[in-house]
Amino acid sequence: MKDKGITVTKEKDMPEWYSQVALKSKLADYSRVKGTMVIRPYGFAVWQKIQDEFNKLIAKNNVENAYFPLFIPESFFKKEAEHAKGFSPEVAWIEKKTKDKERIAIRPTSETIMYDSYSRWIRSWRDLPLKINQWCNVVRWEVSDVKLFLRSREFLWQEGHCVYETEKECETETLHYLNLYKKISKDLLAVPALVGKKTEKEKFAGAKTTYGIETFTEEGKALQLATSHNLGQSFAKGFNIKFKGRDDKTHLPWQNSWGFSTRLIGALIMTHSDNKGLVLPPTIAPNQIVIIPILKKDSQNEVLKKARQLKSKLKKYRVLLDDNTSYSSGWKFNEYELRGVPLRLEIGPKDIKKKQVVIARRDNGKKESIKESQLLKTIDKTLNNIQVELFRKASKFLEASIINVETWNDFKKVSKDKKLIKASFCGRPSCEEEIKFKTSGITSRLELLNEKKPKGKCINCDKLANQKVIFGKTY
Amino acid sequence: MKDKGITVTKEKDMPEWYSQVALKSKLADYSRVKGTMVIRPYGFAVWQKIQDEFNKLIAKNNVENAYFPLFIPESFFKKEAEHAKGFSPEVAWIEKKTKDKERIAIRPTSETIMYDSYSRWIRSWRDLPLKINQWCNVVRWEVSDVKLFLRSREFLWQEGHCVYETEKECETETLHYLNLYKKISKDLLAVPALVGKKTEKEKFAGAKTTYGIETFTEEGKALQLATSHNLGQSFAKGFNIKFKGRDDKTHLPWQNSWGFSTRLIGALIMTHSDNKGLVLPPTIAPNQIVIIPILKKDSQNEVLKKARQLKSKLKKYRVLLDDNTSYSSGWKFNEYELRGVPLRLEIGPKDIKKKQVVIARRDNGKKESIKESQLLKTIDKTLNNIQVELFRKASKFLEASIINVETWNDFKKVSKDKKLIKASFCGRPSCEEEIKFKTSGITSRLELLNEKKPKGKCINCDKLANQKVIFGKTY
Repeated sequence: MKDKGITVTKEKDMPEWYSQVALKSKLADYSRVKGTMVIRPYGFAVWQKIQDEFNKLIAKNNVENAYFPLFIPESFFKKEAEHAKGFSPEVAWIEKKTKDKERIAIRPTSETIMYDSYSRWIRSWRDLPLKINQWCNVVRWEVSDVKLFLRSREFLWQEGHCVYETEKECETETLHYLNLYKKISKDLLAVPALVGKKTEKEKFAGAKTTYGIETFTEEGKALQLATSHNLGQSFAKGFNIKFKGRDDKTHLPWQNSWGFSTRLIGALIMTHSDNKGLVLPPTIAPNQIVIIPILKKDSQNEVLKKARQLKSKLKKYRVLLDDNTSYSSGWKFNEYELRGVPLRLEIGPKDIKKKQVVIARRDNGKKESIKESQLLKTIDKTLNNIQVELFRKASKFLEASIINVETWNDFKKVSKDKKLIKASFCGRPSCEEEIKFKTSGITSRLELLNEKKPKGKCINCDKLANQKVIFGKTY
Repeated sequence: MKDKGITVTKEKDMPEWYSQVALKSKLADYSRVKGTMVIRPYGFAVWQKIQDEFNKLIAKNNVENAYFPLFIPESFFKKEAEHAKGFSPEVAWIEKKTKDKERIAIRPTSETIMYDSYSRWIRSWRDLPLKINQWCNVVRWEVSDVKLFLRSREFLWQEGHCVYETEKECETETLHYLNLYKKISKDLLAVPALVGKKTEKEKFAGAKTTYGIETFTEEGKALQLATSHNLGQSFAKGFNIKFKGRDDKTHLPWQNSWGFSTRLIGALIMTHSDNKGLVLPPTIAPNQIVIIPILKKDSQNEVLKKARQLKSKLKKYRVLLDDNTSYSSGWKFNEYELRGVPLRLEIGPKDIKKKQVVIARRDNGKKESIKESQLLKTIDKTLNNIQVELFRKASKFLEASIINVETWNDFKKVSKDKKLIKASFCGRPSCEEEIKFKTSGITSRLELLNEKKPKGKCINCDKLANQKVIFGKTY
């Protein structure tokens, strides 16, 4: 019983706390296979909810789901030089058998295998835009120490890959998907995110521009949630994707790709959970409400009957009634707190007499008795309020974590705190490399959009600054 | 334009016909990577429909979805000897990097990787039954020549893996999932199936009993649609899965596993399609109805308006309105026949005057004018009738394909026809091996359930027969 709950505090040992929350809430488990993890049914229910919502959003924009092979021939990687260079250290290869001619990789991402097909499917402007998404597993072999949901050799994700007639349409849509990510993160996970552009050094291998959304954790690290890449025409060149335009001439199309992964679940855990365990926002929680009947010998039947009535009244929510008689109510309270169920309803013989129900919030622990006649209204309001409060609290934390610095000395000083640093930057990869080296590991996270171009010099060198960039440690 | 339609007949060259139907209806495509295929959006929409329906059916039975690693260490395979032997020729391995200790395989099926986790999750009878399903990709490397949906190195499937306290519960549920498969096959795909038990020789590597459903194609081959394995206790032994029973003693649990794959889509194509292309049953069709406005210069606006009205009246169906003006109506008729849309509605200026709509059935080509006031009722009836007729026709074909034989001479003779053979059989693997050798490739498909035990000898040897078995060629 003792080690059922979380045995360390977030403040004392955040990595251990995180891992215990993910494990003990039964979202995930380690596997005995190096570098891999298991997504347990409770965690997969969260993922399916994310999938359902995202599928609806992209369907509105005429994106269709499809499935492309897990395997990529070595020669495909070489068709886009930057892309090959970027991914080669991470790739897992299949042992060659006698009959195999070429070395075959397991997809780390699917640009190459998809665009090979695209080159045969696209002939005319009438075939554009082509908008395809796939949900699949991808592999980055270099990972060996697993951090549940945040870092593993294999993970699940979606990757959207679109092709357009014009540069403008491509850029507009690249930003559209970025906004969908921000929406999912806010509306579903109640996780606030910074939105911006990756620096030259940090952008996706082969992209013209990479946009991303990131959040920040109490561990003092930035956490990338999703990216959306404007690929320009370089893959079209590499894979020979051409179309006959409205002018009857042959053109290269414009492409983007965009993705998020099960890492979102890691951000969800990090952002809201506490020393009692997981905290889930109502919109994403597999069970929004748990009903716990307070069972005593002489009133058991009456209470169970009432609990079932309650459940049937709450059909618009995802409700779990735990009527198991072999565990105590106290045991159940702990269990569902550990598993992050947003709202607990308690109903006992005394409550029945008083025509009331006790409701307890997971997020702030507040508990009150509600008249039965007011129950539906109160639940509605409370679930809403939990969602809003979780986002508000997390947003406040994120905002307070960004420290504006003007001098290199301040940069150095703040880089030792658990903070994000906002500074003027020249944009050069070599300068960024230098910053990373001089600070033991600080990298650029995002160039903020919609900010005024800074005046004056880069935070680290003598060149003129041309962007405001958020720097920080990352996972 | 000429090669847009199907250029061979089913009767003349069934393999080429099949491949053209799958390709030209845009369900799937070949990939340049040996042994693999692409599931295009149209095909994936069919798969998602199957997933949605099956998810509902298993959720009713408290099965939850989860996700386990793609990678399996070599040592796991060795824990169940028969299983290892059965799968070893098919397995793809990852190239070892310097740091890797053990050889790692890509899952051909997930019994071993899942049961390793199960051994840590199951402690008491209170943890049982454990019912988990996963949707994922699996790899059987020995395949090099692709037959779209029917045979490829990688395919998508679902695999359910349950653990039970008692042998009886395990067997009952093994048959329950088998029945769900039959239901999906009938209700969704209108594909009739034989239900039965695999012979000793053909059962799953490591199983106690394998049940399966199979259909039969005009190519003269049996097509396995799904299997459900009662695994007994052999994996529990191999993976050390134990539980403390209600009697406080330690027991081995009972397990089953059950699965179907994207091969179902192959069966769907084979069963209903014709020389004009794909034929889809209404329940599974991504578009159940296509509306084609007959566009002429002077009435175009009026007709388009009417077509849109029609569409909005048909919201309970999945309707596609093709209002593209750069293709002719004739081109569109061919296109949606090729793609198997069950019902076509045509609306032109004359129809508007007469307050009627032309409806054309894809399955039998019948075309009639329907008064607008009767449209909804007629569509409902017609879609229903298409579903029923497709299943009836296919069932008739399946029944007529089974030939009862009593002597080895007849067996030999019928084995040259495109038929299934029903015969008495002794059940011995060596005898089955002999039959295969003597007939160039006939194997047992299923032992029929609910049949009387035969009297007399085996069709091939002097031993007593103990089962009625369906034999045939297969994919």
